[in-house]
Amino acid sequence: MRNIKNALYAQSGGVTAVINATACGVIETARQYPNRIGQVFAAKNGILGLLAGELIDTAFESDEAIAALKQTPGGAFGSCRYKLKGLAENKAEYEKLIHIFSTYNIGYFFYNGGGDSQDTTHKIAEMAKTLDYPVACIGIPKTIDNDLPFTDNCPGYGSVAKYTAISTLEASLDVAAMAHSSTKVFILEVMGRHAGWIAAAAALAGTAENDPPHIILFPEIPFNPELFYAKVRSSIEKQGYCVIVAAEGVKNENNQYLSQQNQQDAFGHQQLGGVAPYLAQLVNENLKLKTHWAVSDYLQRSARHIASAVDVEQAYAVGRKAVEFALAGQTAIMPIIVRKNQKPYEWQIESVALSAVANQEKKMPKEFIREDGFGITAACRDYILPLIQGESYPSYRAGIPQYVKLKNIKG
Amino acid sequence: MRNIKNALYAQSGGVTAVINATACGVIETARQYPNRIGQVFAAKNGILGLLAGELIDTAFESDEAIAALKQTPGGAFGSCRYKLKGLAENKAEYEKLIHIFSTYNIGYFFYNGGGDSQDTTHKIAEMAKTLDYPVACIGIPKTIDNDLPFTDNCPGYGSVAKYTAISTLEASLDVAAMAHSSTKVFILEVMGRHAGWIAAAAALAGTAENDPPHIILFPEIPFNPELFYAKVRSSIEKQGYCVIVAAEGVKNENNQYLSQQNQQDAFGHQQLGGVAPYLAQLVNENLKLKTHWAVSDYLQRSARHIASAVDVEQAYAVGRKAVEFALAGQTAIMPIIVRKNQKPYEWQIESVALSAVANQEKKMPKEFIREDGFGITAACRDYILPLIQGESYPSYRAGIPQYVKLKNIKG
Repeated sequence: MRNIKNALYAQSGGVTAVINATACGVIETARQYPNRIGQVFAAKNGILGLLAGELIDTAFESDEAIAALKQTPGGAFGSCRYKLKGLAENKAEYEKLIHIFSTYNIGYFFYNGGGDSQDTTHKIAEMAKTLDYPVACIGIPKTIDNDLPFTDNCPGYGSVAKYTAISTLEASLDVAAMAHSSTKVFILEVMGRHAGWIAAAAALAGTAENDPPHIILFPEIPFNPELFYAKVRSSIEKQGYCVIVAAEGVKNENNQYLSQQNQQDAFGHQQLGGVAPYLAQLVNENLKLKTHWAVSDYLQRSARHIASAVDVEQAYAVGRKAVEFALAGQTAIMPIIVRKNQKPYEWQIESVALSAVANQEKKMPKEFIREDGFGITAACRDYILPLIQGESYPSYRAGIPQYVKLKNIKG
Repeated sequence: MRNIKNALYAQSGGVTAVINATACGVIETARQYPNRIGQVFAAKNGILGLLAGELIDTAFESDEAIAALKQTPGGAFGSCRYKLKGLAENKAEYEKLIHIFSTYNIGYFFYNGGGDSQDTTHKIAEMAKTLDYPVACIGIPKTIDNDLPFTDNCPGYGSVAKYTAISTLEASLDVAAMAHSSTKVFILEVMGRHAGWIAAAAALAGTAENDPPHIILFPEIPFNPELFYAKVRSSIEKQGYCVIVAAEGVKNENNQYLSQQNQQDAFGHQQLGGVAPYLAQLVNENLKLKTHWAVSDYLQRSARHIASAVDVEQAYAVGRKAVEFALAGQTAIMPIIVRKNQKPYEWQIESVALSAVANQEKKMPKEFIREDGFGITAACRDYILPLIQGESYPSYRAGIPQYVKLKNIKG
């Protein structure tokens, strides 16, 4: 029994339509190695639950329930927004984590999140080494923002990209039908604080030059009202309507978020706004055009009902591979998705050292944004298109998806 | 050839995920009667195009293109928001319409829209009678608002109901996962200016008492901030988070739209707001809770990718039956959906005189709204549930739905 160690899995940061598919990959794979891995624990609410010693024993969940994670959005064990401080400032917290690892005989730690989480996993691996505690620390990529380095793309992105492209296409057909006598401008706000990956995916709604969306606003490109108005006007002239997709993180030329432009009224009261209502107001006041706007918010990152099959498969694969890497004796690494071939699209999972991942943020490369700043290039389309392929539909009961709710019993 | 008359079909008002399925039903059925129906015209941009004599000849569209309408959202021929005035005030416009009918040898007129459109169809039928012009005038029901009288439900509603229930469920899983350390309140704004049918459908996301959504705000129930805060607080205490679905038409106790509460800033500038950001601001300021909000706007009524199979079938059936009624010599009627049995759900198409439909608006009955005003009753659930059954998925090419774009060649 000496060789049998327990595993611990935790979710971190904003959840996605497919983070539970990664959990499924981890747990199903761990269950295949009963001679190497004993219990598989999950931290309740991510690292916060772990620090509080709140571990869920996944053995109480049936194989069917674990399999159903693959089609369930959200974070099945709870997630959190909490970043551990540096090792120097916060040694006690890291020591506490290792102590909890020791208490639960954890030999494999899997932390599923974005850039911050990869950094945390790296620091935990360092502390384990310092304290001479043997544990494989594997960071597993997850983020709809698609901003992690080294990996060709991030699990979660393909599905939000697919949702955004389809929603843009559908809303475009709506406004196109109404534009003659009613709404002429439609604005969809999508996530993306620092990088325009999600907004870029809206371009996949069209294929011809004048197809919607007619304008994409990226955080990477400072917003210029005059160029924007000119583009709206020319779209209306050419197509009779204009569809705009804006990333939440669009900034003006003074580097201020547009969404904060209307955050304070004259009394200093905070106004909750978004980019979409702000742009709608600009179009209304300056171009006197009737607008409609939508903010998809959580809907976009939890839309498991129309997840990309490629994304679900990759999310599962990084989970499976994380366990296999750990069993092969690797630590302080992150599985990454490597694009082996473009047409037909082929990919495989490799790994990168967490020390290299650090806190890098992968913004959109310049060659992915069209010269006028309002659209994507052919290279960008070639990059995103494979990631939205296939429709991974969940099963339904009585008209509603059968998303699983785990028992989440403490271990 | 004497008996062969042409048909004219027009779309009116806000489009839906399935209004083109009705167009498909009309055109496919008309094509089955070449000895009775000659050309099938469609008005470009609804009644406005008709008044301008802009008719599309659907004969240029292949059978495959017409069949693909069944899976395409938006309005394939264009729609409009334009209400003809009364017969007395606007006799000339009605005479012009009859003149156009005569020019194009129209013997069958199908007008596909909401309450206003039924009224218009009725008036056209009256004018035709007055001028002794023989034409079957059939109003075909369509509205996501589900507010037409006599028909058990309106084509378009089942799909927006399904979209709303699924989106609510998915976003709830998201906020539930994050609530421990981040967002605790999520607000989804849905359409419904006067009736809460769409907001009501959100309740289908859950089945148990404490399942989300925890609060539904209906236009039928005046908004009471104190009761609202108390309900948010109790949801947070019980479940750790709170999911709110609000109809855009929620009003305060002075009968003012909440969405207009933040429409003017201190300088009198118009602020484009919605109910969701307004409620988010209230929760933020008064309860000091982190909120997220979404406004689904056009996304909800064009979400053909997750349309209800029952809705698509019914939308097609009212189109088919409209033609059959016209061929049977009926006029000034509207096909309606009649619920013949609850479990198992059975329905059939019957008809009602347009004179009876008038401009009535069917709000939610009192017995469909829970006594506390924040949810629906079992009777309401029983009513909505059959309407969201089945997933009518469109076909896909390269990850995107294959929605058809017609040639729309003038006749």
